[in-house]
Parts: sequence; C-alpha cells; structure tokens
Amino acid sequence: MAIGQAVPMVDWWSRVTGEVAYALNLKLPGMLHARVLHSPHAHARLVRVDTSRAERLPGVAAAISRNDLLGQDQFSPYYGPVIRDQTPLALDRVRYVGEPVAAVAAVDEDTAAEALDLIEVEYEELPAVFDPEAALAPGAPLLHEGPRRVIPARLEVRARSKEGTNIIHLFTQRKGDVEQGFREADLIIENVYTSPPVAHVPMEPHNAIAQVRDGRITIWTSNQSPHLVQMQIADIFRLPTADVRVIVSTLGGGYGGKINARIEPMAALLAWKARRPVRLALRRNEEFLVYTQHAVKVRLKTGVKRDGTLVAHEATCYYNGGPFADSSPNLIQRAYASTGPYRVPNLKTDSYGVYTNALPAGAFRGYGITQVAWAHELQMDLIADQLGIDPLELRRKNVLHEGEPFTTGEPFPECHYPELLEEAARRIGWGEGPLVVREGTRIRAKGLSCIVKGAATVPSSAIVKLNGDGSLNVLVSSVEMGQGAQTVLGQIAADEAGLPFERVRVSEPDTAVTPFDHMTAASRTTFTMGTAVRYAVQDVKRQLLELGADLLEVSRDDVVLEDGRVKVRGAPDRSLGYGDVVRRALRGNLLGHGYFGPTTHLDLETGQGKGSAQWHPAVVTCEVEVDTETGKVEVTRLHACLYVGRAINPRFCELQVEGSALFGLGQALFEEVVLDTDGRIANPNLSDYMIPSFEDVPHELTTYVLESAHTKEVHGIGETAVPPIRPAIGNAVNRALGTRIFDLPLTPERVLRALQEQRG
Amino acid sequence: MAIGQAVPMVDWWSRVTGEVAYALNLKLPGMLHARVLHSPHAHARLVRVDTSRAERLPGVAAAISRNDLLGQDQFSPYYGPVIRDQTPLALDRVRYVGEPVAAVAAVDEDTAAEALDLIEVEYEELPAVFDPEAALAPGAPLLHEGPRRVIPARLEVRARSKEGTNIIHLFTQRKGDVEQGFREADLIIENVYTSPPVAHVPMEPHNAIAQVRDGRITIWTSNQSPHLVQMQIADIFRLPTADVRVIVSTLGGGYGGKINARIEPMAALLAWKARRPVRLALRRNEEFLVYTQHAVKVRLKTGVKRDGTLVAHEATCYYNGGPFADSSPNLIQRAYASTGPYRVPNLKTDSYGVYTNALPAGAFRGYGITQVAWAHELQMDLIADQLGIDPLELRRKNVLHEGEPFTTGEPFPECHYPELLEEAARRIGWGEGPLVVREGTRIRAKGLSCIVKGAATVPSSAIVKLNGDGSLNVLVSSVEMGQGAQTVLGQIAADEAGLPFERVRVSEPDTAVTPFDHMTAASRTTFTMGTAVRYAVQDVKRQLLELGADLLEVSRDDVVLEDGRVKVRGAPDRSLGYGDVVRRALRGNLLGHGYFGPTTHLDLETGQGKGSAQWHPAVVTCEVEVDTETGKVEVTRLHACLYVGRAINPRFCELQVEGSALFGLGQALFEEVVLDTDGRIANPNLSDYMIPSFEDVPHELTTYVLESAHTKEVHGIGETAVPPIRPAIGNAVNRALGTRIFDLPLTPERVLRALQEQRG
Repeated sequence: MAIGQAVPMVDWWSRVTGEVAYALNLKLPGMLHARVLHSPHAHARLVRVDTSRAERLPGVAAAISRNDLLGQDQFSPYYGPVIRDQTPLALDRVRYVGEPVAAVAAVDEDTAAEALDLIEVEYEELPAVFDPEAALAPGAPLLHEGPRRVIPARLEVRARSKEGTNIIHLFTQRKGDVEQGFREADLIIENVYTSPPVAHVPMEPHNAIAQVRDGRITIWTSNQSPHLVQMQIADIFRLPTADVRVIVSTLGGGYGGKINARIEPMAALLAWKARRPVRLALRRNEEFLVYTQHAVKVRLKTGVKRDGTLVAHEATCYYNGGPFADSSPNLIQRAYASTGPYRVPNLKTDSYGVYTNALPAGAFRGYGITQVAWAHELQMDLIADQLGIDPLELRRKNVLHEGEPFTTGEPFPECHYPELLEEAARRIGWGEGPLVVREGTRIRAKGLSCIVKGAATVPSSAIVKLNGDGSLNVLVSSVEMGQGAQTVLGQIAADEAGLPFERVRVSEPDTAVTPFDHMTAASRTTFTMGTAVRYAVQDVKRQLLELGADLLEVSRDDVVLEDGRVKVRGAPDRSLGYGDVVRRALRGNLLGHGYFGPTTHLDLETGQGKGSAQWHPAVVTCEVEVDTETGKVEVTRLHACLYVGRAINPRFCELQVEGSALFGLGQALFEEVVLDTDGRIANPNLSDYMIPSFEDVPHELTTYVLESAHTKEVHGIGETAVPPIRPAIGNAVNRALGTRIFDLPLTPERVLRALQEQRG
Repeated sequence: MAIGQAVPMVDWWSRVTGEVAYALNLKLPGMLHARVLHSPHAHARLVRVDTSRAERLPGVAAAISRNDLLGQDQFSPYYGPVIRDQTPLALDRVRYVGEPVAAVAAVDEDTAAEALDLIEVEYEELPAVFDPEAALAPGAPLLHEGPRRVIPARLEVRARSKEGTNIIHLFTQRKGDVEQGFREADLIIENVYTSPPVAHVPMEPHNAIAQVRDGRITIWTSNQSPHLVQMQIADIFRLPTADVRVIVSTLGGGYGGKINARIEPMAALLAWKARRPVRLALRRNEEFLVYTQHAVKVRLKTGVKRDGTLVAHEATCYYNGGPFADSSPNLIQRAYASTGPYRVPNLKTDSYGVYTNALPAGAFRGYGITQVAWAHELQMDLIADQLGIDPLELRRKNVLHEGEPFTTGEPFPECHYPELLEEAARRIGWGEGPLVVREGTRIRAKGLSCIVKGAATVPSSAIVKLNGDGSLNVLVSSVEMGQGAQTVLGQIAADEAGLPFERVRVSEPDTAVTPFDHMTAASRTTFTMGTAVRYAVQDVKRQLLELGADLLEVSRDDVVLEDGRVKVRGAPDRSLGYGDVVRRALRGNLLGHGYFGPTTHLDLETGQGKGSAQWHPAVVTCEVEVDTETGKVEVTRLHACLYVGRAINPRFCELQVEGSALFGLGQALFEEVVLDTDGRIANPNLSDYMIPSFEDVPHELTTYVLESAHTKEVHGIGETAVPPIRPAIGNAVNRALGTRIFDLPLTPERVLRALQEQRG
C-alpha cells in the first residue's frame, strides 16, 4: 500500500543537487527585465506621473504607470480575491510606503533601475493612519472612499462593508448570554494581547515572467494560486480566463505570501506594452513590501468558575489589514477560535478587519489563528495561576470532546485532545518536579499550549490519465513548495488505484491544462485535493470495471479490481492488467476526473453554522531557559503533538511539524517587521529582520503525530503546529520570570523591560 | 455558429511576425549540443566502436554508442511502432548509409563535431541490396536474422513476418475470381509503374532537447506523435510511460516524416549520460537520412470489356521499406486502393513491404496511396485510349456509387464522385476543344485523375475544462503544424458547447497532462480528434444540465442548453450562464472527457472487412505545357475537387488542398532522392533536391470543396489532394507527347528520352 509509507520525495535528487527548476531561474529568449518604482509616502494623492523621460533612456522597452490604466477600456484595473480594491499600480492615491507607482522593462535590471530615477512623480501628502483602532475613530483618514465591488459568491460581506468607514469586514459571533455568563463567574479576567506584523521571508522572492502573444497572456510565476492569478489577470485585461495561462514550477517557499496576484499584473502590463517577455523579480528589500502577517490586538475577557469551568468569553479582535482587503474578509473570521478548543457556553466575539496605511497584510501560515491562540493560551495560564489550578488540569477540564458544540455551534469532531495533552505533558515531564527551576541568573521553565485550527473550504478538482502500460498521470494544480504535494498526491492516487507508487506521476500546475484548484494553502491540499484525486481515480476504476468485464466477457458485477488488475470474481486466473484493458479497449488512455469542495457557512450576525470542514488540534509543550541578565530566551525543549486522522506519509508529517515549530519559534522570540512613524520599514533585510537558524533549534525537538485506526480521514498538517508555539513559549517565559508579557516578540529588550517593571 | 466560418488561425499574428515558438528555438539552461556519427556503409558488421578519445576532448560531456546499450539491463534498445527492429544507434550491424553509429554531446556543436572525428569505428562490409525484388530473390543478403518482436495489438503481422526473408509484411486481397475475370475481358492491359523515394523536407528539421531529472525524462521535440515518442522512449529506458514527458510546440512542417522517435532516443541517452539537457538538431543533409517516402513498383494487369467495364484487376506492389519496418506493415495495406475508386468484381492484390539497404521509408503525406494512384490512373488513361473512350467517360462509367462494395467488401459511403468529375471537367474545359494543342515546340494537353484515400483508425481522446467565467480550455495532444489544428478543434468545441469561438482555447501536446492521441497524421485530426472533443464537451453539457437544474430548482428534464446558458424550458427568463453554474456549484471548473477511435479490420488472406472509417475522394484536372526541345513541363492550370462532408473552416480546406497540390506537383515534376550504387544520397541538399517554389505555382489553381447539407460528418482533408496530382500531370504529359512514361519524376531528361524512344 502506498499510504502510510515514508516514501522519499519524488524530487529529492533535484533538491539535493540544486537542480530544482524554480521560476527564478527561468529564461525566455528576448526576455526583458523589470524594476518597480515604489511610493515613499504612506498616504498621498498622486498629482502627476510622467514616465516619458524613462521611456527615452536607451535600453528601455516600456514603462507603465496609471497613465496606461486610466480611461483605457481595455483594462479593468481593480481586482482582489474578495473585494476589488487593489490595482496593479497606484491610480489616484498611494496608500502605503512601497506601493508600486510605476515600472520599467529594459534590456537589463541596471538599465531599468536607472530609468526609475527618470520617472517624475508629484505627490500631495495626506494624513496617514497605521493603527486599526485609530483608523476606526471618528475623523480618521479614510483609505477607500466610494463603493467597493465585492466579487460575487466569494464572501457575504455586503452587510459589513459600509462606505465611510475603514472597516474591511466585521465578523461577529454570539452564543448563549455572555452578560449572564459573567454574572455567574467567580472570576473575570480581562487582558489585551498583541502580535506584530511578521514577514514570510521565502527563500525565493516573488518573481514572474509574462508573455503576451496572439492576444493571450502566459505567466510563469512563483505563486501558490495559479487559478487565482489566472482569474485576476483575466479580470484586469478583460480576457476570458481561457486566454490567460499561468504556469507554476516548484516554489522556494510560500507560507501564504504568494496567494494572490501582486507582481504578475505589472509583469503582464509591461509585456503587453513592450511586446516582449518581461521578467520581474523582487529584491529582498522589496519582498518585505508584498505582505505581512496581520498585526492583531486581541482584548479578551473571560469568566470562570472557581473550579476552573469556563462560563463566559468576550473577545474583540482588531486585525490590521493594511491598504486593501485581500484575504482579510475571510481571515478575520478565524476569531471563531479566540476561545481556543474549549467548552464556552456564553460567547461574544467581534472581529474587525481594518484598512490602515500600514503594509498590506495577507494570508500567513497559521491564518488568523496564530494571533488569537497567543491570546487565549496566555489567558488560560493566567486563569490557572489565579485559581491555583495546574495549567494542564485546567485544559483537561475545559477541552472539547467529540460531539460537543464548538463556538460555531457545530459538533466537534474526533480530535483526541485528552491523548494529545497527556502525550505532550509526558514528553516534557509535566508534573515531574517543579515547572520552574532557577540556577543563578538562568531560569528554566515549562510551558504548555493547546489550539484548534480550521481549514479552508474551497474547491479542488483533479484529472487522472491511466496510460497504456498501466502507469498513471495525475493532473492537478497543486503547487509543490517543499511540502511534498507531488509525492503525497501520488501516494493517494496509487493507493486508490491499487498501483505501486512508482507508477504514478503528479503534474505541476498549468492553468491551460491542469484542472481548477483554488490554491495550495490553508493546509488543504492533502485533504481536499487528495479527495478530488481519489474521486478521479474512482472514475477511471468504474471504466476499468466496465471495459474489463466486456473484454473478459463477463457481467460487470462479476469483475473486481485487485493488485492493479481486473479479475473475474472467483476465477483469479481470468484477469487483465490495467494496461491490457486500456490497449485492448483501443482508448489510448482512460481519463477520469473528480471534484471536492466541502462547503461551510457561518451566519453573519451570530457566527453560527459550519466554520470548517475539519478541525485540526495541536498541543505543544516546551522548556525555555531565560537569562535574567541579558534577557535572552532559549527554547531548550519542544514537543509538538497533533492528531492527523490517517497519515499519508508519516515522515512528511514530522517534517511539516518541525518546520512549523521553527516558524513559530522565530515569531515568538524575534520576528517583527518594524515600521517607523512614517510607515517605512526599519528592517527590510535579513541582517535586521531575524529568522530562525539552526542555532535556534531546541536541543530536544520531537513530534507526535497521532493516527486513528478507524478513520480514513486525512488532516492537513502544514500549519497546525504554528499557532501553539508562540503561547507555549510565552507561557514558559512568563512562568520563568513571573512577568506578564502580552506583546510579541519576546526579545531580550522586552524581557528585561518586563523584569524591570516587575521589580519597579 | 463557430462551424463553417473561415475564422483566422489563432496564431496568425505569431506566424506573421515570426514569433512562433518552434522547438528549434528553445534553449534550456546548461544545455549541451549533440552531433551524430553516421555509417558510411550501406551494410556492414560493426566490429568495434571506441568513443574514448572523443570523450576526452575538452568540452565533450558524453559520447554514446552501442557500448552503452549492449548488456545493460537498464535499456531495452529495440523499438518500433509495429515491429521492434529499430535501435537508437547501430548495435551489431549498420543497414543503411547514414545510420547513427555514435553521438556526442558537448558545450557547442563545433566541439561535438570535432569529437566525432575522434571516434574509432571498425566495419566489416557486407553485401547490400537496394531493390525490393532483388531483396526477395533467393540468396539475397538478409537485413534481419532471428525473430523480430511484434508489438501486441498493433497489427496482425505474425503470419507474414517469417524468419529468413526480407519480407516486412505481405498484404493480400482476393475477391471474386480474377482468372475468370480476365477470361471474360475483351482487353487486358499490363504495365509496371514506379515511384522513386522522395523527401519530406520540412522547413524545421528534426530536433529535440532531452532532460533527465529525478529518474524521469522530459523531451521537447518537433514530432507529430507525442505519445508514440513517449511510449518508445519508455520502452527503451524501461520506464513507466508516466515517467516520460514529451512536449511538442508548433511544428515547422511534418508531412509524415516526424511520426516516430528517430532522434529522440539519442538525445535522451546523451542527456542520461551527461546528466545535463542535450539538444540534437539535424543539419539539412542529415534531415534527408531520417525517412523517405516508400519507393514503389506497381505491376498492374487490368481486364476490361469493350464498353469500358472493368472486370478484373491484378496488382503486385513492392514497397521499399529500407532497413526497418517502421510504418510499412500498415502502409503497404493501402494497396487496397490499387484499383482506384472503381467497381472491380474480380480482384487479386499482393502488396509486399520489403527490407532493403536503401534509406528508411516511413509515413509520407499521401500514405501509400500516392504510388498506387500513379499506377491506376495512368492505366485508366491507357485503357481509354485503347478502347477509344474518353477518359472522363471511362471513369464516369466505372466509378463507385454510394452503397456499392469497395475492394474490401465494405459498402462505399457518400462520396459524390459524379459531381466531382463533372466539376473538375468543367473547370478545365474538358470536351471543349481538343485535349491536346500543339504550338510549335510547345504542346498543351489536359489530364485527369480520380482517387480514393483511406484514413487511419487509431484512438484520440480529449478533455475539456469549462472555467468559472464560461470560457473553455480544450486539452488535446494534437500537434499544430500549420494545418490549423488548434483553430479547427476550437471551432468544433465552440460549436458543440454553444460558445463563441473566442471563448475557447486549445492546448498544445504535453504527455504529462494532455490526453492520449495516437498521432497528428493521416488526415485524422479534424475527424477523429474533433469527434473526441465533441464527446468531451457533451460530457460537460450533461453536468451543466444536472447542476443547472439543481440550481434553478427544476427537474433535469425541464432545462435545456441554449446560447451558452442553462435555460428553463418555456421560461426563457429563468436561466444561468455556464460560468454562473460553475461558480455557484462550487466546482471551480467543469471537466469532461471523450474518446474516439473507430475500429477497422481486414482479413489477412482476403483483405476483406473494413479498411477505413471514412473514404476520401478527390478528382483533379490539369493542363500542362511541354517544351519538346527542352523537355521542360509546366503545369499551367490545376483544379482539385474534393468532397468533405461538412467543412469546419472552408478557408483552411482550400489552403490544405492548395498545399497538397504543390506537394504533388513537385513529386510529379522533379522530386527524387537519388542513391548512388553504394546507397549514398547524391543530392542531400536543397540545391540538388528540388522542391516547388512560387515559380512553379500554376497560373490557374482552384479548389472545389464540396459539402453535403445533410451530413454532420467531417472529412480529413490534409492529404486527399496529394495522390491525384501526379497522375493528372502524368496523363497530361503522356497525352501531350504520345509517350508512355511510367516512371517518376517527369524530369526534362526523362521527357526527352521518352520522346527519343518514341521517335526511334
């Protein structure tokens, strides 16, 4: 069986030898190179853009600006995944520092850069606002005036997206009677938790090559959503989507930062104007401008009985969306998990997505959950402290069991929290000795966290092609970005087909030929696309049974599929290989297709309904060592425990969890995109913006991936271990120091300041 | 309606501006360049091949020879479309002058060429045989000893492919009593007609780039049969076909000469050995070595009544297959048309495919029909002369009508020969004045011919993808080679879907993602693939009706598809666009697939059964002017009349017929690959091998493409006009001069010699 085996990645050789064909390395004959002119202002009216001098520079093939977009029937410059409020280049205003104002394509990057200096832009500065609460205050500068067009069927945001405010979307959840709940509580705790903007930092920056030929556009790009890019480019150019071809090779990292068309429209416009292929590859400092994780402020008020029973929960979340909506309307709904995976009878949650002049915020591994998990898990430890209950015990008491209602009202699925809590506790030695140990200026402490993450519920489809030798091609638009999608989908197809894994190959995305997939993100590929692939194989299996029965001259009911053969039931010697069937039936190949797109729906007022097709649980324990003299925090031990239903490739599960752990560790300890008071990034480089290195890996780092023998359900595992890392470390640090640090990251400066405040 | 419209080619802009992405212009990073060492002998034992000195030349990355293939379990070097008797490189023997013996990949072509000189090869010459009849004589040198492996299900050649002979395949046809027929005849005419080898001369020579990565092979190649190349490379490398990816861009001409893997195995072996991409592009002189059209000798004996009624036909055809079987086993069966499209009650045909040491012979536009048409149509004119019947009248009398049995016994379909004969005659003014007019040394004469061509019957399959905006992607492996496949298949898909043509796009072949198609050849794409595309669209239409009915909340029987919308029957205002259905059904896209592969079967002994899914008729009339002093023949007027059922794109039909006419004209007047007595090509260049230029275009060149209002059947039209051209011109020349030239081409030398013989 191909399932459950730790088969190596299909492209391990290319990865080891550095031969992976990243888009970044692609060259087309006659290709031009582009550079972008960015706004120096956070908010300004664009008075004049003049690219004529730049266009006259020898070696320059084309320059684009709003002058090419405005008043041109050929283009429809507003686009976006939910609300059409983005533009390829600034039109009337700039709304953040770094917004593209113009772009140039030239024979080489140096010439293009030289041409940027010749572009004349006149700005009229406007007041800027960077903080969501300030942006919601009366009199705050408005980021967008006039109506914004919501893309049909993407999200029901109509009621929330009022003119004259900076609210992108407001998600509310109401359940029980929260005031009554607080009245019944023995203890009420209220705190504010903040998460800063952090950067995705893919090794491969955003880059794309665009070509316009015979009225059609082809784009090779490093993007997680080939079909979204296709639709967005088609929107902008007013073309049928069939006329836009998006080809995606293996990504050098995405992490949610390559979900929408951000640089592709500029590349396409330049290629259209220059009539030659144009390559646009961002520099590292520009990469920081594309997206950040949403900075979020969470105000939590929790009512609890003396015995630790949670009775009331009130959350107000402010997600800083930056200058346009992008993923915010969906993402901020993840505040449905601001309770954590706990039983809460009375609930009130308000989650705001807010326009500001900060950097654009978009999807990020952990998608809106990471920030609320930081809040609810610190809050749980505070409750435990105040009630004198062991933090593990408090979670045991409140955690949801199968069948109990979640905040959305839907019954919680099989999640195995009790087992995960015990296993995580056992691994860290929770309860064996004190949770805090002091040795001179160094303090060691243990931390714990427990989270739930939802999955995206958008459609995938797959095609399979059974060849005349019985080998199988799988056509999907899933993007390989190191997570092993090609391998795992191949395992699923092989399992369903009853073929050896070696006889199955999985395609890369090419929207001209591979079927629709919404995106490779949201930990959805193994589950959603995996299911679509299974259905596609089942479609071929039906044909194999029909054709096989005909060829074997028995009735359809008398044949079965076994070991890659069509066999006559009860007469094992009468059989045909799959390839025999294909060849003898004179079909050349057998084709099958499958769709899968679980639907969810939440009521806009109450937040009740179905929030996710699956709920993914994780429990993390850790040990930190804090130096009270330097403020430095070291994570010495980390154990991540997850339930996955059925693991397709156990080794990949471990690798994903390890990657998530380090992702979360960096965010806990040092990652933050720092904006100065004018909205400029202070640290747009990898000297000043720190990401984890091998030095930061805990001495003890283990993963526990729990499977269930009695399910075939497959959980996505790409992100689940990210959200619990921050609070596990935060709880350990606060426990070590007796501090109440509620703001990330836990830098030495912040740790020392908290110690000072505590002493002072 | 998209059908019947002369829409422009989808790639007209690229064609006009020279931007078409031919494989020849593709470059991969780190790509090496290959050159091939060819055998100087027509037949020799290979004693020793030593590439070691070549491999040591700086800049050389790899050299390959039989040493890499023999005794290597990794490879299975024998391959072929029907019989596995080809090898990527010579193993034990060389069998023709030019056979690849070794190949080198180096940093550039010059270095590779230099390295060829360092390869040491020792040959032991063997007696060679170039003529098929000599090759069949007792004691002739045998080209292949030992058993040859026939690929299952490709052709029933077992009975014919005996060891110890040079017969590739013998096709026989028997009907009625031919001896009795001759006894009943008033006149018996017997003649021998010959056609020489001619070259395909595509503007773009054979070229391929191969890359081996992660154990998989990718090949970009200029080939008409992506899936055949895929299967043949998989055979050689013992890989699942899913591990071999063949990508084909627009071809700069094919004409049947790019049907099988000829250079691709060498490129793949070099890439495998060098571990880098390798490009192999043939030089023009090498291009002549790949394939020729079969040289054929046809002995025809015809028995006829005084009134012109044909009563007996005996044909013996010798097709010179060259050193390996390739397409010969199928192609020589086209001798089923050695009668022409005439009523013949008593029939005996023997058609031999024969191994010789001449150049490899393969598929060629006109596929085996051209050579027998040259014979039967000259024979018809001789009969007419001897009986004193007008040649047009003789054909009117004997031509098959709908429902009458063909040589294969099957009832002849709707072909409209009477209309075609009258139209062709009318156009040339047949019967208006004498057929021959002499003006000094210049003689003008009219000629006529009438032929039938079969179509190949191998499977095609197609996938369609209906996008969320209602536009349609069509996934096919049909190769665009100037014939307009992408446009025509788009028209068919648009017609079936009820969409505007502009909303449909057709893919290029990529065996990793596009469905199986046997080949783009045999005039089969519009009919066979077109039908598969229709079926695929119908699959999606079924889904549209089901989903649309659900969304419109009516029963499936109450909805219809009209104007690209799902409409409630009788309530035209209740409807959904295709895109609305796709989006609201949350599928992302709707996928459909279709297969079409009409089957045929001929009995091996009698040739009775079904020979072709369709029969394609053509009638040509022409006028030539012959200069009796120089021997030069000029074709002054040419009219080609065809029946096509229903024309998808009338303009493309005309263009195809015009192209075929010039193809045939070159073959009639000057094309011949000349071999010297040692089997070397005397004219492997475009100075000595003439192809038609615009100078040769007849002053008057018209086409008549007859459609039938009461059919939806679509005839392929790529080749039908090739076979009638040679005999129409030949009949005109013989009529002008009173000569009996039965050998092609009609060069000035041959014309003058015939005139001398006639006088002498």
